[in-house]
Amino acid sequence: MNYSSAFIPTLREVPADAVIASHRLMFRAGLLRKLSNGLFAYLPLGLRSFRKVEQIVREEMNAAGALELKPTVVVPAELWKESGRWDAMGEALLRVKNRLDNDFVVSPTAEEVFTAIVRDELSSYRQLPLTLYQINTKFRDEVRPRYGVMRGREFTMKDAYSWHTDEASLDETYQAMGRAYRRIFKRCGLSVIPVKADSGAMGGSGSEEFMVESEVGDNTLLLCKKCDYAANVEKASCAPDYDSKSADTDGIPPYEKIETPNVKTIDELCAFLKTEPKTFIKTLIYRALNVELDLTKAPGCEKLERKKTSQDAPLVYPEAFFAAAIRGDLDVNEIKLAAVLKASEVNLASDADVVRLTNAPVGFAGPVGLTSLPLIIDHTVTAMTNAVTGALEKDFHYKHAAYKRDFNAWMIEDIRTVKAGDKCNACGGELYTKMGNELGHIFKLGGKYTISMNVKYLDENGKSKTPIMGCYGIGVDRTLASVIEEHHDDSGIIWPASIAPYHVIIIPIKYDGELKTAADKLACELTQNGIEVLLDDRNERPGVKFNDADLTGIPWRVVIGDKGLAQQTPQAEIKRRREKETQMIDIDKAAAYLTEKIREELAQLNG
Amino acid sequence: MNYSSAFIPTLREVPADAVIASHRLMFRAGLLRKLSNGLFAYLPLGLRSFRKVEQIVREEMNAAGALELKPTVVVPAELWKESGRWDAMGEALLRVKNRLDNDFVVSPTAEEVFTAIVRDELSSYRQLPLTLYQINTKFRDEVRPRYGVMRGREFTMKDAYSWHTDEASLDETYQAMGRAYRRIFKRCGLSVIPVKADSGAMGGSGSEEFMVESEVGDNTLLLCKKCDYAANVEKASCAPDYDSKSADTDGIPPYEKIETPNVKTIDELCAFLKTEPKTFIKTLIYRALNVELDLTKAPGCEKLERKKTSQDAPLVYPEAFFAAAIRGDLDVNEIKLAAVLKASEVNLASDADVVRLTNAPVGFAGPVGLTSLPLIIDHTVTAMTNAVTGALEKDFHYKHAAYKRDFNAWMIEDIRTVKAGDKCNACGGELYTKMGNELGHIFKLGGKYTISMNVKYLDENGKSKTPIMGCYGIGVDRTLASVIEEHHDDSGIIWPASIAPYHVIIIPIKYDGELKTAADKLACELTQNGIEVLLDDRNERPGVKFNDADLTGIPWRVVIGDKGLAQQTPQAEIKRRREKETQMIDIDKAAAYLTEKIREELAQLNG
Repeated sequence: MNYSSAFIPTLREVPADAVIASHRLMFRAGLLRKLSNGLFAYLPLGLRSFRKVEQIVREEMNAAGALELKPTVVVPAELWKESGRWDAMGEALLRVKNRLDNDFVVSPTAEEVFTAIVRDELSSYRQLPLTLYQINTKFRDEVRPRYGVMRGREFTMKDAYSWHTDEASLDETYQAMGRAYRRIFKRCGLSVIPVKADSGAMGGSGSEEFMVESEVGDNTLLLCKKCDYAANVEKASCAPDYDSKSADTDGIPPYEKIETPNVKTIDELCAFLKTEPKTFIKTLIYRALNVELDLTKAPGCEKLERKKTSQDAPLVYPEAFFAAAIRGDLDVNEIKLAAVLKASEVNLASDADVVRLTNAPVGFAGPVGLTSLPLIIDHTVTAMTNAVTGALEKDFHYKHAAYKRDFNAWMIEDIRTVKAGDKCNACGGELYTKMGNELGHIFKLGGKYTISMNVKYLDENGKSKTPIMGCYGIGVDRTLASVIEEHHDDSGIIWPASIAPYHVIIIPIKYDGELKTAADKLACELTQNGIEVLLDDRNERPGVKFNDADLTGIPWRVVIGDKGLAQQTPQAEIKRRREKETQMIDIDKAAAYLTEKIREELAQLNG
Repeated sequence: MNYSSAFIPTLREVPADAVIASHRLMFRAGLLRKLSNGLFAYLPLGLRSFRKVEQIVREEMNAAGALELKPTVVVPAELWKESGRWDAMGEALLRVKNRLDNDFVVSPTAEEVFTAIVRDELSSYRQLPLTLYQINTKFRDEVRPRYGVMRGREFTMKDAYSWHTDEASLDETYQAMGRAYRRIFKRCGLSVIPVKADSGAMGGSGSEEFMVESEVGDNTLLLCKKCDYAANVEKASCAPDYDSKSADTDGIPPYEKIETPNVKTIDELCAFLKTEPKTFIKTLIYRALNVELDLTKAPGCEKLERKKTSQDAPLVYPEAFFAAAIRGDLDVNEIKLAAVLKASEVNLASDADVVRLTNAPVGFAGPVGLTSLPLIIDHTVTAMTNAVTGALEKDFHYKHAAYKRDFNAWMIEDIRTVKAGDKCNACGGELYTKMGNELGHIFKLGGKYTISMNVKYLDENGKSKTPIMGCYGIGVDRTLASVIEEHHDDSGIIWPASIAPYHVIIIPIKYDGELKTAADKLACELTQNGIEVLLDDRNERPGVKFNDADLTGIPWRVVIGDKGLAQQTPQAEIKRRREKETQMIDIDKAAAYLTEKIREELAQLNG
């Protein structure tokens, strides 16, 4: 392809809203243009790389036995009403009414559509397992789209879904998808951090996220310096830094009320009592919504009643209050707490609710004598036998409070927010944090959609059964942008060969006479070897051409100049984008050399 | 690919709403399923063929120098407001509001988006000509989607757009696109009818539609039995079957009023006067909307005023009435009449308007003495010197009426509906009709979008100019369905090799023991030759497998049975789907034979 015909409008300026490298470089290198907030058009150079990512994903899905389908992007709302997500999903779901006043959804994901297709075709266990996927346009009406295609409104996602007769079969496909995902990211030249979430289901893990490090990542990850432990802070756990077993109340004086006038925060209390936060029991009051956990015997919950939010939904307590206690130097992780309570949402209770439930203003809650609501304590509290804690009375605390001796818990759970410096649960190594973006997610759904959408098959004995499901997504645009995040320098992109829009850029100093002949010949030789070539035929200064070559990130650059050609054996200058050095090479040997080098890199990426 | 893993749910029953072969067969052969009215999901077998059509289109676009882009499917309404189509386009445009109350469009076509992209990048004449395209999801909110993907709501279209400094450059790209379209349809094994519409612009034609014959086609086409003339009835013309030059009033008596009580239609009049329809002048009164033609000097239009429908629109008469006269055996073509008047719409006037304008009820209009409105006559009327016509008075006609002697026309135009049996304008051959569906359309847009969206570039002299545009569309789904329409029989599809989801289906009578070994070996040999193989490994009766092979239309079938394998040189049975005969072949030679045959067909289609 000749550069002058390739529509590559490179920019010297950076778009004002582009704060991350991939966003900046995709615009500057002429890969992308903005149509509207969160809506982008891929230009030819960007689309070439985009299609390569797409093709890698497709090949690995096919190799894993998944079959490609193509449903529509606009889908009937009935399916979303069946699954319950028409109501459950908020404003991120783009809803449309057509001329006949029928409701439609511009798909953000496609569990419903694929489940509906399978429901109509499934009759026998012999058809299972079955894995189907699409690589298709999706829309999510983000409130604040930003970072270019890293968080756009319209994007392309590969979404796969699998159906199974049992957990063992689901786990097999789930593991195969995990391996396929690792291969996909390796082939794209990406370092991903696989983050498992131990859901306690068979096979060890029911969910795994594939993250890339990103300064603007949506996720805080905890990683171990010694082993490969990686977890989202939402779910991370750490090794105990306390000793419950040797916790002993021998020699600890009985708990004692002390006056702490105008002292509310732990820091104030530390200063007042001249001690450290870790000697306190921090007690917080939470309001939880849609609690599925059975509260029949929970303190203070005697009058609560269970309800259904929709016909097929489980019985839940619409609203319930809880006290959560943790060692004073730590924070309660609300997402872990919500998981423990099986609640849809958990938030700090309002001041008024705190007063009503603890008989004291905010700052004086504590586990001793607390009977008005269920108390959940973190494991750390079980090791505390000489603690300071709120006395459920304004301006008073207790000291010498001891777990078991002075208070008991309704539940003991891990509700701790893990931080950098905590120890790895697996190996004891030190944990550190990274910000990450999710590129892919594999997930065991179980019966969530097959039950609500009434999917059935006949088993070996002719009995009607409901299959279980897995789902597996990868964001294609986000993967492409992440390749640039990982592979660039101040001058531009540095594409891995597998994703590069072209493998080689040939720059004749002037596209004329002998230089033109030599450039055309080399381009032709490379093309015949299956190497993708961009020939810079523009009438521009060499500096401009070199800058554009660096910016667009083509892995190999060949410069053909008068001086080199005039040598006894004519020479060209070769430079690898990711290296600084240039080298001269016999121009007759350039095609063979470059072909070998590029095939080597591709083999290494794909191997 | 093994059949049992390929998710090909074939059906014995035909969906109730499937009235055309492609719709029936796409469902029965397991290519497609319905999600909702006009919304379909391609299943794996259908998607393989769909992708092949897409790839052929892509290759030919690239070969013609067009560059592929990928804008979004959901696009900001602002662009459509700029072009004026937000208002101009009716309910077929699917409009969406997002959570921020911004308007969006689910693209039915993309002139605006591509023009906006080019507008931002275009600065110099040196960047032109430029041709960009996408192959992407489109949505048109059809009132009555039907015939499967032949007229669906969501579909995939290849839409290309080109920008030029002058007509000569536009014509060059237009011609190149015409050649690319012919190659695309040839490669798909489709017989298309190119239908030119002579717009009078430079290069002879400003628009060409590529039609396929279809029993349920939207278009009536007129074709010549002798030459390659083909036209849409909306625009077709024919050779004169009258002689104006020798038209003479010598010996024709003066026109004379005759009483024709209770006679209204031409048939009644024929019976009454014992003569033929071709001796009558049929005169009809039309109401035209948004007439751009200058009516300043037209009879009866003295009081009409011109208005603008929108800011950038031309001045038009919102409503105007006309009389149109034609020979009694012919019909007025309202689309041709609207084109003559430069009107947005032309319809028969209401009875009340006819009475008001002709002073007589419907059935008695005529050109003689008509002064209340402009008279447009078809060329046929200019040869009539002894005609019967309405006398502008209830129950009266004139006979012996003669053009020029007894009446004159305001305009003489071709407003005749051409019919089968009329003569070809080009060669005099007989015309016949076909019903057709449009698969593709190439069109010279001129300045329509570049003017309204204010696109500029600097010419050689540094002067700001507006480029002109062309647009070029192909419906991918419709093309695929049309391949099936053209290539099927009572048993199923008969794919051309270029579009076939697989080239060969191998059917071992039992997938076990020696038969399995032989089937696997042949599949492996063919696959290594680049031939796409479906191996029917199912535990089904041979009859079921043969029926599915016929239904899914795989071009070649190989049956491996015990008897054949037991021969001294083991044999397999080969059958080409489009032929009736089977033949036995040495199984060791089968791979080479089939590979050669398939490559031959592919070369012939692509050649």
